[in-house]
Amino acid sequence: MPRFPVAELQAWVTRLFQVAGLDPSDAHLVADVLVSADRAGVHSHGVVRVGAYAELIRSGAWRSGVRPRLVREGGAFLLLDAEGCPGPVAAADAMRRCVDKARTSGLAGVWVRSAGHFGRAGYYAQIAAAEGMVGVALANAAPSLAPWGGRERTLGNNPVAVAIPRQDASPVVLDMALSVAAQGRIRLAAERGDRLPAGWALAPDGNPTDDPHQALAGTLLPVGGYKGSGLALVVDVLTGVLAGGAFGREVSPRRGSRFAASHAFFAVDVGQLRPRASFLADVERLVHMVKHTALAPGFGEILLPGEREARRAAEQKDVVDLPEEVVVQVRRAADGLGFAEPLPPRVDGG
Amino acid sequence: MPRFPVAELQAWVTRLFQVAGLDPSDAHLVADVLVSADRAGVHSHGVVRVGAYAELIRSGAWRSGVRPRLVREGGAFLLLDAEGCPGPVAAADAMRRCVDKARTSGLAGVWVRSAGHFGRAGYYAQIAAAEGMVGVALANAAPSLAPWGGRERTLGNNPVAVAIPRQDASPVVLDMALSVAAQGRIRLAAERGDRLPAGWALAPDGNPTDDPHQALAGTLLPVGGYKGSGLALVVDVLTGVLAGGAFGREVSPRRGSRFAASHAFFAVDVGQLRPRASFLADVERLVHMVKHTALAPGFGEILLPGEREARRAAEQKDVVDLPEEVVVQVRRAADGLGFAEPLPPRVDGG
Repeated sequence: MPRFPVAELQAWVTRLFQVAGLDPSDAHLVADVLVSADRAGVHSHGVVRVGAYAELIRSGAWRSGVRPRLVREGGAFLLLDAEGCPGPVAAADAMRRCVDKARTSGLAGVWVRSAGHFGRAGYYAQIAAAEGMVGVALANAAPSLAPWGGRERTLGNNPVAVAIPRQDASPVVLDMALSVAAQGRIRLAAERGDRLPAGWALAPDGNPTDDPHQALAGTLLPVGGYKGSGLALVVDVLTGVLAGGAFGREVSPRRGSRFAASHAFFAVDVGQLRPRASFLADVERLVHMVKHTALAPGFGEILLPGEREARRAAEQKDVVDLPEEVVVQVRRAADGLGFAEPLPPRVDGG
Repeated sequence: MPRFPVAELQAWVTRLFQVAGLDPSDAHLVADVLVSADRAGVHSHGVVRVGAYAELIRSGAWRSGVRPRLVREGGAFLLLDAEGCPGPVAAADAMRRCVDKARTSGLAGVWVRSAGHFGRAGYYAQIAAAEGMVGVALANAAPSLAPWGGRERTLGNNPVAVAIPRQDASPVVLDMALSVAAQGRIRLAAERGDRLPAGWALAPDGNPTDDPHQALAGTLLPVGGYKGSGLALVVDVLTGVLAGGAFGREVSPRRGSRFAASHAFFAVDVGQLRPRASFLADVERLVHMVKHTALAPGFGEILLPGEREARRAAEQKDVVDLPEEVVVQVRRAADGLGFAEPLPPRVDGG
């Protein structure tokens, strides 16, 4: 697999977003959100997105020099409107404001409407964990699931992330969407000519399918049937409906900002509930119980939520693997922008 | 199925809890939590629990005349210790205090440690919805799941409930636990001598099993594999660990109050984020999108979360069905208490 030096790749992606139209600070943040996903091995939310993000910037949907506008403020919440601020910039700004608010009120929430795609939800939950708080990040997304019993795309595969700080270790980060299998895995199966496992998707006629092309034209199946479907509906209300943004079928990555995804962030300032050291010690006790649970056949280790990704990111601190097809797509996006600068030299000898 | 008049059954269960040792007001609330579950058709959380609850009361673990003690208060949260207040009484009290707090801060959270079983989580989320707020209720529970990759009971099948108010209709109430199938369904299969569908449970050796007895000795499988397992861990932290109560393997329905389950409640005062009428209109638009999604083969209707239960409860406003085995268990619990009063006359002619 092609390998790139992280610092150079990050700088290159930053320059790409500057060419697209972002200022250096916004470009750097968006590049960090994407490159950190690749470092964690989550290529579906990594630099493969530069083309889509660059298009949002070029179209004027995302602009620099904008910060989410405060619509309403209460004792423990803010409601913001992104108003063209790039999704990841709006989200990071919102979670930082949520952390500040939680320092006063103990628990705080920040809603952002019309913000658009923000990359990996866990990135923002971790902003709270880095401050010693429990953080939650939710978003709605363009429809890809049918509600349980249906066969049309009505609900988004809405991400849910929770980050829990730990003593001297990477936070526990649950970062999940609500389908059985990610759309990206179905696309990969389509490219490779593979069939799908049972239970991943429905064809447009509503029957189960193992054909990835039928699945891409149809709907993703929600995790746990009616449970995942119910969670998708609830997250849509907790984000788009509460924020006064788009929801359900109207959420779109292609239409104007009124139709962009909404986000919700929550932070709990642990130290206001109980001594921080006791909380951290109890988290370690729970982690110990979980990690030392006797193994089922076929498993070599029990992993905490986010543990695999944190290890991969630590291994790829300096040098990151990018799948060949990602490199091709990134190059194509750069060319489409007129950003001719070659990617940093590969360090895999390729 | 045996059928009973609701008002008489509720009064009978109330008197049973008074005989066990609760005062009339606490006894009435606990009876309402249980009878309303049966009315909704959720018999696993209905009057079948009178024996276990009566035992907690008789042992002194649950006492009347106690309200959860305020441990800490912040701008948007309360931390309470149930200190022997019966689980459902503590939970209802906590959600009411959460609603009051949210009127000031917009978003509020109330944590209750050492509280014990509270019945159906949705009951408490609905207390917020009845006040026009979005309500969330979480609890941890005695261990019944292995973390993904394990074969020992380390995490609870922790309930998650969210209630969303509607205009002129019952609220949307998502009320789910994190296993593929409820323990109650596995117990039922064991009693009937049925085999289990694939994917419900592991035997004590960690291999999949279709034998309900092996499943009851082993572990329930989490919904979505690592996703449900991760959610169970996260809910444990959001309840027991944040509240300074029991968590993981230590949560027990049998040991003293320090080991009882903890709860967390959240409420969002919708009207502080946006005009209440706009919110309610948008909820109806989303409901319309969901309900009018084209159907998959084999489905006659798309149901909202909680819709089936709300309909059943409306049908059973005056008269409620109780499975024969529930009637037997309730009678046995009453006899064990020395509560000789016969159950109200059945109205099914049985």
